[in-house]
Amino acid sequence: MNTAATSEELIIRTLGEMQQERCSSSDRPLDPGCLLERDAERSADRLGCAAVDFPVAVVLPAGGSGERMGLATPKQFCTILNRPLISYTIQAFERLSWIGTVVVVLAKENHDLMLNIVQKFNHTKVKVVHGGTTRHRSIFNGLQAFSSTTDSLTPKPKVVIIHDAVRPFVEEDVLLKITLAAKEQGASGAIRPLVSTVIATTSEGYLDHSLERAKYRASEMPQGFLYDIIFQAYQRCSEFDFEFGTECLHLALQYCGTNAKLIEGPPTLWKVTYKRDLAAAEAIIKETLSMSACIIAGAEAEAVELAKTLQKNLNMMETDVIPCAKESNTEYLSKTQNFIHISTTASNFLGTLDMVKRFEDTDHTRLYPVVVVWVQLNMTKQSVDSQKTDELTAFRSLASEVIQGNVLLYGIQIDHTKVPEQWERSLERLTQITVALIRDRNAALTGQLLHA
Amino acid sequence: MNTAATSEELIIRTLGEMQQERCSSSDRPLDPGCLLERDAERSADRLGCAAVDFPVAVVLPAGGSGERMGLATPKQFCTILNRPLISYTIQAFERLSWIGTVVVVLAKENHDLMLNIVQKFNHTKVKVVHGGTTRHRSIFNGLQAFSSTTDSLTPKPKVVIIHDAVRPFVEEDVLLKITLAAKEQGASGAIRPLVSTVIATTSEGYLDHSLERAKYRASEMPQGFLYDIIFQAYQRCSEFDFEFGTECLHLALQYCGTNAKLIEGPPTLWKVTYKRDLAAAEAIIKETLSMSACIIAGAEAEAVELAKTLQKNLNMMETDVIPCAKESNTEYLSKTQNFIHISTTASNFLGTLDMVKRFEDTDHTRLYPVVVVWVQLNMTKQSVDSQKTDELTAFRSLASEVIQGNVLLYGIQIDHTKVPEQWERSLERLTQITVALIRDRNAALTGQLLHA
Repeated sequence: MNTAATSEELIIRTLGEMQQERCSSSDRPLDPGCLLERDAERSADRLGCAAVDFPVAVVLPAGGSGERMGLATPKQFCTILNRPLISYTIQAFERLSWIGTVVVVLAKENHDLMLNIVQKFNHTKVKVVHGGTTRHRSIFNGLQAFSSTTDSLTPKPKVVIIHDAVRPFVEEDVLLKITLAAKEQGASGAIRPLVSTVIATTSEGYLDHSLERAKYRASEMPQGFLYDIIFQAYQRCSEFDFEFGTECLHLALQYCGTNAKLIEGPPTLWKVTYKRDLAAAEAIIKETLSMSACIIAGAEAEAVELAKTLQKNLNMMETDVIPCAKESNTEYLSKTQNFIHISTTASNFLGTLDMVKRFEDTDHTRLYPVVVVWVQLNMTKQSVDSQKTDELTAFRSLASEVIQGNVLLYGIQIDHTKVPEQWERSLERLTQITVALIRDRNAALTGQLLHA
Repeated sequence: MNTAATSEELIIRTLGEMQQERCSSSDRPLDPGCLLERDAERSADRLGCAAVDFPVAVVLPAGGSGERMGLATPKQFCTILNRPLISYTIQAFERLSWIGTVVVVLAKENHDLMLNIVQKFNHTKVKVVHGGTTRHRSIFNGLQAFSSTTDSLTPKPKVVIIHDAVRPFVEEDVLLKITLAAKEQGASGAIRPLVSTVIATTSEGYLDHSLERAKYRASEMPQGFLYDIIFQAYQRCSEFDFEFGTECLHLALQYCGTNAKLIEGPPTLWKVTYKRDLAAAEAIIKETLSMSACIIAGAEAEAVELAKTLQKNLNMMETDVIPCAKESNTEYLSKTQNFIHISTTASNFLGTLDMVKRFEDTDHTRLYPVVVVWVQLNMTKQSVDSQKTDELTAFRSLASEVIQGNVLLYGIQIDHTKVPEQWERSLERLTQITVALIRDRNAALTGQLLHA
């Protein structure tokens, strides 16, 4: 028992060091897997599987009404790149093989909406439960889903993680630390430094006193509990707690005497609260999706040369140049959400067509839109505008067809020239436009043939 | 004296009601003037001028290093639409005629950078002062700029507002309430409800207890003080305060016995802290800039008809249709940052050219980029691609010329057709593309001729 504790502590310490690095550099989840990884299988080599040899489940209260957003749609159902926020959060758990059932607790009127989301984005671990009138009642309803001994699909977990549906960027290392600390201590919770000074007010609205910032922390999510402890706390707590309480850690302390272990979490744990937070979340997702691109150059010398130059210019992304999408295996192609297809013959977007069609057979576009930029290198003296109308029309209708399957298809023409300055300027524009298209993922601009 | 207080209170109450409305609907400043208004003169009819008959100045500490952002550039100098964040914040004060000098306190190494910003964006009220090693030392340095009796440019104000350089969306009503409460009470500060539960931790990192959320508030900026009070507080406070303190309200209480009046502020007061907050601020600014558009239709019947249809479709914006930019006065044109110029003859972007050139004579593009969308209604059977190369080239070079003057020029072609379904689809695409161009303000896509 002591040995086990020591090895867990070791993992927590190492992760703590990783965490510090992350916090200091950005608030984007630096592990793109957090967003991009689709198959739970792929995380089998991760730390969690080795350290967690007991059942872990999740309760995700999602009953909020979105009042603070000033939006008609509750914020957990607001979409980013055509996908509801809650689906991103579910995915953050679903991709981890050491985490079992995710119980989503929501208002009855959102039941069908949620089932559609589960089906559309193929969430396999979700169990939907109806919420109560307050956050605590909803969480208790969620916990009760496990207590029924007859339901073999939702066996009682050793540790249950409670999280917010509107904190989509939770990473494995935080979940692991919370889980191990909960197993050890009975309860655990993520904390963050206070951003503002906290003050106590008089009843007349004057300053009474300021709290010393260093002594206090903001209590965030996720929180973790031994299932038996948090269930017992809810069985014992008062109507007042159910009605006005907000903090599960407080209940575990008051009704079970369990002082939660507190874990410093990264800034990515922040909660999507206001409309501006949706824009921030969208920016984070788009930035993460733009980290790499695959350039398909074919065999023609000019195309290969252009591909290499473009690769050099796109130095803010990780890029590969490959000769042909057809010959690459699906696993390779599924590593990126961005493809740049270079061809030299004006009419030849057949290669692009071919690649785009491949996505239909895979699961590649289910969670995120794929961007395909068709770069057409114009070698002749004939200019852009002499291109035949029916080719353009075909390109546009392909774009409007594949967008149904979550593929965003754009075209860029670049005229080959031997005048070095002119060619440099065109290359620079090609780079800028390519980056803009990949970063923005703007559906309104698909099917456009731009000019570098 | 009593009468004055009553009338001030009345204003505060009325503003309070306005505020509530705003909070409940969005976190974007609903007063576009907060971002768009340029001339202090234009706010002369506002509430502030009537209520504030004493000198008010501002101290803006801007010495932060941006560690939390994970960026090389301190966050106050990060740019949104090519303009540093601090310039937006300065503008929020400069536009109000009842506010005098804005003392910007910054690190010596940023002195030249700041002077460039002041010049480029024509900030007329700014005085730059060098900061100290901590926030409190910097604020004291800022306050001392007023105490020199020989400097007639920075006379001692009655009330001084202290704000953060990274809270750009502060609105007039909050500033007014803070100012009047500071005059009345000696000190005042904006507060917000706590977003997270605040907890006290044990030295070993366990939960000690949770604070009852309703009794506490987050202390935000702006804060206001009678100049003599805050200056005295800084003269009296200890080295420890200078080194480790963060809260001006606390100093006024401890050293002058002044309990600050607390004012509930809107969510727009939030502080740009992390990289994601920059994305959120950018989204707010872009949304505000996209609230209205001016459609210029000329006299041709087909163009006027298209203009009216587009106006109907752009129902998320306020739009006007006018016949000619030339004949409109400059004041009218300066009310929007978005122009849609419709023409029917393929070569005629001369009208667009004409309008774009007008901006050069005005101050219209100094603070925000202006979007000009040239919509070319193609009436002939000849299709897009038959357009002459040199016309396209001329359009592109115009776009790359005017972008230097902060004008973003895009083109959209739409083919006229009498097939109703086809025409409907084209109109829908025209709307979507126009909205995308206006909302995104993407510099990489200027000079492109898109197709609806």
